[in-house]
Amino acid sequence: MAPTGTKKGILERLDAGEIVIGDGGFVFALEKRGYVKAGPWTPEAAAEHPEAVRQLHREFLRAGANVMQTFTFYGAQINEAACDLAREVANEGDALVAGGVSQTPAYLSCKSEQEVKATFQKQLDVFLQKDVDFLIAEYFEHVEEAEWAVQVLKTTGKPVAATLCIGPEGDLNGVSPGDCAVKLVQAGADIVGINCHFDPETCVKTVKMMKEGVEKAGLKAHYMSQPLAYHTPDCNCQGFIDLPEFPFGLEPRILSRWDMQKYAREAYNAGIRYIGGCCGFEPYHTRALAEELAPERGFLPAGSEKHGSWGSGLEMHTKPWVRARARRDYWENMKPASGRPFCPSLSNPDSWGVTKGHADLMQQKEATSQEQLKALFEKANKGQ
Amino acid sequence: MAPTGTKKGILERLDAGEIVIGDGGFVFALEKRGYVKAGPWTPEAAAEHPEAVRQLHREFLRAGANVMQTFTFYGAQINEAACDLAREVANEGDALVAGGVSQTPAYLSCKSEQEVKATFQKQLDVFLQKDVDFLIAEYFEHVEEAEWAVQVLKTTGKPVAATLCIGPEGDLNGVSPGDCAVKLVQAGADIVGINCHFDPETCVKTVKMMKEGVEKAGLKAHYMSQPLAYHTPDCNCQGFIDLPEFPFGLEPRILSRWDMQKYAREAYNAGIRYIGGCCGFEPYHTRALAEELAPERGFLPAGSEKHGSWGSGLEMHTKPWVRARARRDYWENMKPASGRPFCPSLSNPDSWGVTKGHADLMQQKEATSQEQLKALFEKANKGQ
Amino acid sequence: MAPTGTKKGILERLDAGEIVIGDGGFVFALEKRGYVKAGPWTPEAAAEHPEAVRQLHREFLRAGANVMQTFTFYGAQINEAACDLAREVANEGDALVAGGVSQTPAYLSCKSEQEVKATFQKQLDVFLQKDVDFLIAEYFEHVEEAEWAVQVLKTTGKPVAATLCIGPEGDLNGVSPGDCAVKLVQAGADIVGINCHFDPETCVKTVKMMKEGVEKAGLKAHYMSQPLAYHTPDCNCQGFIDLPEFPFGLEPRILSRWDMQKYAREAYNAGIRYIGGCCGFEPYHTRALAEELAPERGFLPAGSEKHGSWGSGLEMHTKPWVRARARRDYWENMKPASGRPFCPSLSNPDSWGVTKGHADLMQQKEATSQEQLKALFEKANKGQ
Amino acid sequence: MAPTGTKKGILERLDAGEIVIGDGGFVFALEKRGYVKAGPWTPEAAAEHPEAVRQLHREFLRAGANVMQTFTFYGAQINEAACDLAREVANEGDALVAGGVSQTPAYLSCKSEQEVKATFQKQLDVFLQKDVDFLIAEYFEHVEEAEWAVQVLKTTGKPVAATLCIGPEGDLNGVSPGDCAVKLVQAGADIVGINCHFDPETCVKTVKMMKEGVEKAGLKAHYMSQPLAYHTPDCNCQGFIDLPEFPFGLEPRILSRWDMQKYAREAYNAGIRYIGGCCGFEPYHTRALAEELAPERGFLPAGSEKHGSWGSGLEMHTKPWVRARARRDYWENMKPASGRPFCPSLSNPDSWGVTKGHADLMQQKEATSQEQLKALFEKANKGQ
Repeated sequence: MAPTGTKKGILERLDAGEIVIGDGGFVFALEKRGYVKAGPWTPEAAAEHPEAVRQLHREFLRAGANVMQTFTFYGAQINEAACDLAREVANEGDALVAGGVSQTPAYLSCKSEQEVKATFQKQLDVFLQKDVDFLIAEYFEHVEEAEWAVQVLKTTGKPVAATLCIGPEGDLNGVSPGDCAVKLVQAGADIVGINCHFDPETCVKTVKMMKEGVEKAGLKAHYMSQPLAYHTPDCNCQGFIDLPEFPFGLEPRILSRWDMQKYAREAYNAGIRYIGGCCGFEPYHTRALAEELAPERGFLPAGSEKHGSWGSGLEMHTKPWVRARARRDYWENMKPASGRPFCPSLSNPDSWGVTKGHADLMQQKEATSQEQLKALFEKANKGQ
Repeated sequence: MAPTGTKKGILERLDAGEIVIGDGGFVFALEKRGYVKAGPWTPEAAAEHPEAVRQLHREFLRAGANVMQTFTFYGAQINEAACDLAREVANEGDALVAGGVSQTPAYLSCKSEQEVKATFQKQLDVFLQKDVDFLIAEYFEHVEEAEWAVQVLKTTGKPVAATLCIGPEGDLNGVSPGDCAVKLVQAGADIVGINCHFDPETCVKTVKMMKEGVEKAGLKAHYMSQPLAYHTPDCNCQGFIDLPEFPFGLEPRILSRWDMQKYAREAYNAGIRYIGGCCGFEPYHTRALAEELAPERGFLPAGSEKHGSWGSGLEMHTKPWVRARARRDYWENMKPASGRPFCPSLSNPDSWGVTKGHADLMQQKEATSQEQLKALFEKANKGQ
Repeated sequence: MAPTGTKKGILERLDAGEIVIGDGGFVFALEKRGYVKAGPWTPEAAAEHPEAVRQLHREFLRAGANVMQTFTFYGAQINEAACDLAREVANEGDALVAGGVSQTPAYLSCKSEQEVKATFQKQLDVFLQKDVDFLIAEYFEHVEEAEWAVQVLKTTGKPVAATLCIGPEGDLNGVSPGDCAVKLVQAGADIVGINCHFDPETCVKTVKMMKEGVEKAGLKAHYMSQPLAYHTPDCNCQGFIDLPEFPFGLEPRILSRWDMQKYAREAYNAGIRYIGGCCGFEPYHTRALAEELAPERGFLPAGSEKHGSWGSGLEMHTKPWVRARARRDYWENMKPASGRPFCPSLSNPDSWGVTKGHADLMQQKEATSQEQLKALFEKANKGQ
Repeated sequence: MAPTGTKKGILERLDAGEIVIGDGGFVFALEKRGYVKAGPWTPEAAAEHPEAVRQLHREFLRAGANVMQTFTFYGAQINEAACDLAREVANEGDALVAGGVSQTPAYLSCKSEQEVKATFQKQLDVFLQKDVDFLIAEYFEHVEEAEWAVQVLKTTGKPVAATLCIGPEGDLNGVSPGDCAVKLVQAGADIVGINCHFDPETCVKTVKMMKEGVEKAGLKAHYMSQPLAYHTPDCNCQGFIDLPEFPFGLEPRILSRWDMQKYAREAYNAGIRYIGGCCGFEPYHTRALAEELAPERGFLPAGSEKHGSWGSGLEMHTKPWVRARARRDYWENMKPASGRPFCPSLSNPDSWGVTKGHADLMQQKEATSQEQLKALFEKANKGQ
C-alpha cells in the first residue's frame, strides 16, 4: 500500500483549482444489490459482506471518484471495518478517505447542544484512529445542528466539509442558503455545499445561493455538491423523502448519463469544484461527471476504457439505425420516454410540516405498531 | 466445492413442478458498473476483472437465482474463466450453471446452415470441458437459426432451453410464436420461451402464445421467460433496440420491484416455471421475483434478510409520512411520476425494416467510418 | 332561396369523384353552448332555441360543410323544426340536407325486427314530408340493426348512407369491419363508413378494412368517415364512452386544427370521399378538413377568409417570436403539451362487457335512483 | 327593452357584497367559430356577422354572465354596432354593458403620455354616446400605461375597472402586483385585477398579491379576475403568448368545467367578487362559475336547465358504467388523460426578453416579409 502522505490533500487540490470528483451514495446502491435494508438504512454490510462494499468502492474509484467516503454510521460497531475498506480501495488509485457524520435523532428530539455534540464526538475516535484524510458533516436539515457538527469536527485539525440537504427555500427553520453557508464557514468549514434530497439542478442552484451569501459576507470557502441521481422538480422543502415514490418507486426519475454530464458542466460553471453524488448514483453516473470535465482535468477515468464518449461505442453496433445514434447531438437533445403512459410526470409531495421537536419525529425504538400505522394511514389519507 | 451431482438438475426441478428463478442480464448491469462497453458488449471482464463478475453472480444468487449463466460469448477467448466464475458462485448456493449460445453474424450474413452450426459447435467445447449443468440457445430473432442451435446443443446430451427475442407478432420472418415454439420443441428443446427485447408483459403474452401452439400440436415442453427490466409498450417487432432511448436513455423505463412482483405472478399464472430476467435486471429485481413466489416455493431468498415485503422496512423510518407507506396497497397501486414533464411517455421506434441478408447488417469489422455515419444520419433523419 | 333542385345530389357528387365535407356533431357543440343536456342528449333546442341551432348550422356551412344533418331524434316532436332549420341554412350555400336515424333502445332490449323497423319507419315521415336530400343510418354498434335501418330507409328511394360506431375489432357481436360493410352494401347502402366513438386515426383504419371487405366481395360503394375530435388511442371496442373522461373531462384530448388536416389527408389517401366529423368537432375543425383538401377541390371555404393557412395569420402578430410561428413545419411537427403534469397520458377504459340484451341496458324511464346508483358505484369500484 | 336604469350598477352590486360573473373572451371563441382571424384578432364581425356576435353574447348571458363586454377595438370603425349588440343582449337579462380599452402599439413604440392618452380618449366617444354602464381598462403589460388609461376613463364619471395581464412576477418593468394595484387604485380604478395571459390558479394568486398591496397601503378596492381557460403552469412572465402552443396548439390545455368550479371557489375565497374569464372560455366554462357559486348567490343561471350539477345528468345514460359517473367525487378527483402519449406535459416558453421600446415590437403595417420571417426563424432556432 502506498502511504497516504504521497497524495495531495483535499484542500491542496481545491486550493490549486483542481476538480475533485466525489463518489456516490452507498445505501441506495447497496440496497439494490441486496446488502442494505431500506428503512433502517444501516451499514452493517461493511462487516457482514465486505466484498460487496469493497466492490462498490472500487467501481466508484474506477469511475473517477477522488474520494472514498467511509460506509459508517453514528450507531455502528463496524466503523473500523468500513474505514479499512475505504482506505484499501483509495490506495488503489488517486483517492482520499473521508469520514462523515450526519444529523442525529438527538437533535430532532430536542436534546441539548452538549448532548448532540457528544454524539458527534463519539464518532470521531475511529476516524482519528484510522487517520482518514478529511471529515464531512453531511445531510443536515437544520444549519444549527450542522454548525455544532463542524465545531466538533474542527477540533481534530483535519479539513472539514459541511453539506446541508436543503433546497433554495433554506433549512427547515427557514434560514436561507446564503445565511446557512455563512454560518457554516464561520463555524470553521473549509468546504460548504449541498448533498442529497434534491436533483442536481436544484442543488447547483442552492450552492450558488450559498456562494453568493459567503462572498457577500466577505468570507471564503470551497464549494461542493452531492445531489441525488433522481429528477425532483416537484419536491417541496423537505426533498425527495416527501415524494410519494420514495423510496421504492423512484425508477422513472433516474438520471441518464447525459443528464449527469449537464450537471457536471453546470456545477463547474457555478464555481463548484468538489462535484459528487448521493442516493441513486451508480458508478456510470460518476464516470459521466469525470468524462464531462475531462477537458478541464486533462484525463479520463480508468472506467472510460469501457465507454465511448457521447455514444461513440455504438459505431460498432450490428444494427445500422443504432450506429446512427453514435453522436453527441442525438443524446444531448434526447427527451427520453417513460414507457408509462398511465403515470403522471409530476407528483404531489406529502407534506406534514413537522420538523425538529415534533413528537412524530422521536426515534422509533421498535417497528411501528399496527395501531400507530393505522393512525398514520388515516392522517395520510386525509392529507390527500 | 460441493460436487454438482448433489443438486437436482434443471429438468428434475421443472418436472417436479418447482419454480426456477433465473438470473438477470450481465452486459447491461456490468456496463453501469464500468466493466462492459456498450456497442460491442463483449465479456472480457470475466478475465480482466473477475471480482466484478463474481460479485454480480453472487448478488443474483443471493437474490434467489437458481441459475448462473456463464458470462461467455461466441468469439471470446475468456470463456473458461467465465465458466469457472459461474461454477464457483453456483456452488455457494442452490444454483445450476448454464452455458449459452446466441444469434450469429454468420446467419445475418446468410452463411450456410453448416457454417452457422459450426459457430455453435465451436462454443460447446468449453461448456463440455467445464461440465455446465445445461445449455441455453437464446436471443434469436429468426426461429430457423434457433433450431440449428438447438440441434447442435442437443448433441451434448445435456438439457437444452431455447428462447427467442421476439414479441407477439412473431419472428423476423413472420413465423408466429406458436409455430416458433413447435419448431423448437421438434428440434429438441426441453424448455422454450422468450428472452430480452420486450418488457415482462409482452414476454409473458408471447410465451402464452408459444404454449398454446405447443399444446395444440400435441407436444410437451417447459416454459421460460427472461424479459427486459424496461417498460416497452411502444416497441415494434424488433424490440427495444429500435426505441430511440436504446441503450443510453432507458432510465425512465426501468421497472420497479412492484412491477417485477406483478410480472412474477403473471408468468406463474401463465404456466411459466423458469422465471428470470435479461437486460436492465438488477439483483433487487430478481429478489422481487423470488419474494412474490415465496408462498408457492415455501422460502425466501437470502437477500430478503435486507428487504421487508411490500415496504414493511419503512415501519422504522424517522418520518411518520414515510412510515405510512409501509403497506402493500400503497405500492401496488402507485403510478410513479417520471419527474420529467418535458418528456413524452411513449416514443416512435426507429424501424428500418432490414433483417437477415440485408447489407447494412453485415458484421462491422472496424468502427463505422465518418462517411458511413453521415449516410446513416441522413437515412435516420429522413425516416422521422 | 335557391331551389334544392339546382344542386347536385350526394351520389352525383361522389360518383363524379368530388370530395364531400360533412358537418360536425351537434349535441356536444350545443352542450358547450348551453342548449343540450349531457346524459339525455335530446335535440329540443331546435324548437326552443332555433337561433342557436341555426347559428351552428351556419358555422359549419361557412367552414365548408356540404351536408347539413337535421338535428332530429327518434322520439322527438320537434323534428319538423329541425328539418326547416337545416334546409334554411343549406340553401345559403352549396349544402345538402340529410336526415338520420340511429340505434334504438328497442334493439338493445331485444325487441323483434318488426318492432325495431317500426321505430325507424316512424321517423321517415317528417324526412319525406320535408324532402331531405338523402338519409343516413348512423351510430350503430350492431351491424344487424344497421341493416334493418338501411332496409327501411331504402324504401324511400333516396340515397342511403350507413355508418357504424365501431373500431377495427368489429361490431359488438364480433362481426369484422369488412363483413359489416358487405352486409350494409347488400342491404342497400350507397355509402358506408364509420362515425363517432373513435378518433380519426382509428376511424380511417376501420373504414379501410370496410373498403377491403367490400372490394374483396366484388361489391361497390362510396366511403365516409365522421370521427370524434378527441384522441382515443386507449379505447377498447366500445369507444370513448368507456373512457373515464367521458363526457365531462375530454378537454385534453381535443384535436388541434393540424391534427384535423392530417386526418383529412389520410382519409383522402384511403379512398374516403365523404369526410366529416362527429362529437367534439367545432367549426374550425371542419374548416381544417376543407383547407387541407383545397388543392384537390380547387377552392377554400368561406370561413377561410378568417384563417391563414398553416398559421400565416401570425405574420402580423405584435410579438416577433410569435411571427416566427407563421410556418407549416412549425405547426406540423408540434407536440403540444397538456399543461397537466399531474395527469397521465392514457386511461384505462371501463369495460363491463355488457351489450345487446343485458338488463343493465334497458332504457331508463326515470332518473336512476339513489339505490341503483349505489349499486353501480360498487360495481365500478370493484372493476378498477 | 327594459331601460338600463332599472338595473343595479356594477359598484352597487359589488358594494352590496354580490358576486358578479364576467363573460369570456370573444376573439378566441369567435376564431373557432370562423369569424375572427388569429394574428390581427380584429372585431369586424360585429358589423359583418352580427348574428354570430349576438349569439355568443346570448350564450354567455344564458351561462350566467352579468357583464357584456362590447366587442370593440382601438382602431375599429364598427364600435357602434358592437355596443348595440352588447346592449341588446344585456337587456335580455340581468347584465350590464362594459366598454373596454387595452394596451396600445403607441406605448410599445414609446410614444408620449399625451399621444397614448389620446388613443384612449378617441375610443371613449362611442362608449359615451352609447351610454355603456361602466368601463374596463384591460390587458396591460405595463402598469404605467394602465394608469394613463384609468386616468382618461375616469374623466367620464363612469365606474372604472382595471386589469393587467401579468403574473406574480409583476409587470414587464418589474413592478410587483401589489405595487401595480396601488398605482391603479391611486389613478382612480374602482375595481382592480388580472385578465388573460395566465391560468386561473396563477391569476387568483396574483390578484391576492394585489389585494395585499392595496390593503397594506390603507386603500380600498374591489377585485376581479378574468383568466385564460388554459392550464399554463409552464409560462414565464409574458404568459401564454410565449408558449410554443400559442395560439393554434392549445387544445390539450383547455380547462374542464370542474377545473372552472375550482377556480370560482378559489377566487371567491380570495375575496374576488367579479369573477369572469378571457381567452379560451366557452359558455359552459362561465356556467360552471355561476353553478359553483349558486349557494352563495341563491340562484342558478338560465343555462343550468341543460346541465345537471356534478354530472347528475348522466343518471339517465343508457350505459350503466356511465351512470356510475353521476357523482361529485368522481369528477372532482379526475385526472384526465391527454390521449397524447407522444407529447410532453410541459413546454419551454419562448423568451426573447423584448418589451416596451424594442424595435421588434413596433407595429407591423404590412405582413412580415419573407426576409423578416427568415431572420425570425433563425433567431427562434438559436433560442432553443
